[in-house]
Amino acid sequence: MTDPRLSALFTPCLLVDEGRMMRNIDRLSKRALTLGVALRPHLKTTKSVAAARYVLKDGHGPATVSTLAEADAFAQAGINDILYGVGISPNKLDRVIALHRAGCRLTVLLDCAAQAEAVAAASKASGIAIPAMIEIDGDGHRSGLTAHGPALTQVGRILHDGGAELVGVLCHAGESYGAVGHAAQVLSAEQERQAVVDAATILRDAGLPCPVVSVGSTPTAHAAQNLDGVTELRAGVYVFFDLVMAGLEVCTVDDIALSVLTTVIGHQDAKGWTICDAGWMAMSRDRGTANQRVDQGYGLVCDASGAPIRGLYVKQANQEHGVIARHPDFNGDMPDLPVGTLLRILPNHACATAAQHQRYHVVPKDPDAALMVWDRFGGW
Amino acid sequence: MTDPRLSALFTPCLLVDEGRMMRNIDRLSKRALTLGVALRPHLKTTKSVAAARYVLKDGHGPATVSTLAEADAFAQAGINDILYGVGISPNKLDRVIALHRAGCRLTVLLDCAAQAEAVAAASKASGIAIPAMIEIDGDGHRSGLTAHGPALTQVGRILHDGGAELVGVLCHAGESYGAVGHAAQVLSAEQERQAVVDAATILRDAGLPCPVVSVGSTPTAHAAQNLDGVTELRAGVYVFFDLVMAGLEVCTVDDIALSVLTTVIGHQDAKGWTICDAGWMAMSRDRGTANQRVDQGYGLVCDASGAPIRGLYVKQANQEHGVIARHPDFNGDMPDLPVGTLLRILPNHACATAAQHQRYHVVPKDPDAALMVWDRFGGW
Repeated sequence: MTDPRLSALFTPCLLVDEGRMMRNIDRLSKRALTLGVALRPHLKTTKSVAAARYVLKDGHGPATVSTLAEADAFAQAGINDILYGVGISPNKLDRVIALHRAGCRLTVLLDCAAQAEAVAAASKASGIAIPAMIEIDGDGHRSGLTAHGPALTQVGRILHDGGAELVGVLCHAGESYGAVGHAAQVLSAEQERQAVVDAATILRDAGLPCPVVSVGSTPTAHAAQNLDGVTELRAGVYVFFDLVMAGLEVCTVDDIALSVLTTVIGHQDAKGWTICDAGWMAMSRDRGTANQRVDQGYGLVCDASGAPIRGLYVKQANQEHGVIARHPDFNGDMPDLPVGTLLRILPNHACATAAQHQRYHVVPKDPDAALMVWDRFGGW
Repeated sequence: MTDPRLSALFTPCLLVDEGRMMRNIDRLSKRALTLGVALRPHLKTTKSVAAARYVLKDGHGPATVSTLAEADAFAQAGINDILYGVGISPNKLDRVIALHRAGCRLTVLLDCAAQAEAVAAASKASGIAIPAMIEIDGDGHRSGLTAHGPALTQVGRILHDGGAELVGVLCHAGESYGAVGHAAQVLSAEQERQAVVDAATILRDAGLPCPVVSVGSTPTAHAAQNLDGVTELRAGVYVFFDLVMAGLEVCTVDDIALSVLTTVIGHQDAKGWTICDAGWMAMSRDRGTANQRVDQGYGLVCDASGAPIRGLYVKQANQEHGVIARHPDFNGDMPDLPVGTLLRILPNHACATAAQHQRYHVVPKDPDAALMVWDRFGGW
């Protein structure tokens, strides 16, 4: 018998399991405490003020965001220490200044002289010393300077001498999303740590300030053995977790707090297909498990209570159709899933799936309590 | 010198080229006229009332939608003949009835007896004969009954005898998205036509009504040589077109009316990478060209005016970072793209990319006119 709280929802929609989410948040909070670093959660996964209240201890930060729209929304909600963790461009500095004027200490990120010059010029013009961090490339993943190249101190000096506030150095071990298992992630975390600690030493040796030394990604944050020399830890998707993280063994499938509630809308019996109303518009086009050991298609199928149905996954997706089929690894029978059956789909990538929706329907820890609704936002 | 109307926008954001869009709309309108069928445009691509006014001749329909949220929004805007083109489930019928009561003739789609029984029961209970079409499977793509199986007349009879309104049959040649070139698409269109015309004949021979015979997909709509026995044509993505459609040779790259405006935020010179602020959040995770002859990554790079920059594409994407690199097919030099440079990225799949945004910034045909803003919506 399906939970009547779920039967009342219109599908497809996003569900959050409050108990699992609280457990995930608690797990990383305790790690940060043990490792002796501050936690600066990345709010790009949830993009929800209500969810941020669970993640941030005192409600004011520190926090990380991926867009200035997030910075605006969270600043309005009273979060006043925010790192904008994407390389700044000159055409965004007006909004950075406006956030400072509204009382939010927004720190920007950069990795080249042209950006540093723009930040310094905007600092001088506005009279606000914009806090800036230098991104360090620890694994060749995407952005950042190498700690040992000549550009690091050059960029640091442009900021420091030009009127901006040189806050420190930051590294994101993006390659850790390909590091399967704890041992590989321990190595990735140490590489990330070493890169920023080296950079901090070089800046300080050059007479430049570097109070903050920041590392983080969900896999490395859960694996780091020591964070000597590091002052803060960042992670985002750990709040919900997802099939990609389960495939890396950072969590188990039972830790995944986000799912999409869907209704069965048809069958193609000859092919063994059940059609549901969670297509890629509801799941996103993210195929993050495609190159993992187990390819989970567009998601793992659970019953309405959230218990996985052995061997079923979303094999393919069109805009508003999900095709549920037997996983190639499974030889058992398909269960009977008549038209109208409610199911939950666990997503490949929580950030991408959540972004397809405008709100969360939260299943509270208390089985007798009503569902909660948390708005979420998008845009830039 | 970059168009100052674009420099004033915050990136990443969605751009529409009004002139190209009008040309695309005109092209299919003329085809439908020549083929002697009504055009029922699919509004799932644009999800915008302002865009729908360009697509719908008299502003009231007919139209196709993929969600009831679209039906609600377009009904409120005065569109009163809408087909909901995704298999109906019993838990959605309350909203279908509510739309009828609000003056919108909403037609539902189904392909099994359980759905037909639910629609018939809701028709009886509400006193509204819900218009319903039977989906026909012409190519094994996804949903639908085969025209020649016993279920077709059984489902038709449940609807007709049970108090619903049996409107007709519908086929969508989903496999045509894999049919490269005009000749293959002509065959796909004929297969689609044959499937529904056969189904209509069988229903009529059984004494059941079948006034509407509907076909459509963007590739087949542009290829069909004759539509004898068909009464209406559906297509959606043709309004904007995209790289997937260009890869199928349904359009050229110069027909693509949708792009994402982005700013250069960094470089990794050793790798030949330029980093921009259009990541997968702005482009979507859709990799629809991955299995085409030319894999366009996450999109084709153009200058701010929309002219393609030879050999550049978005090689990979993170949430808010796009990595622009030289296409493997290209041996030329990379142009100099300093931090702050504005670029446009043409998307793989217009439906998916547009869904990541809340509004369109429309570049009008008149080069001296101000940009227009069209709101778009999402959700279910």
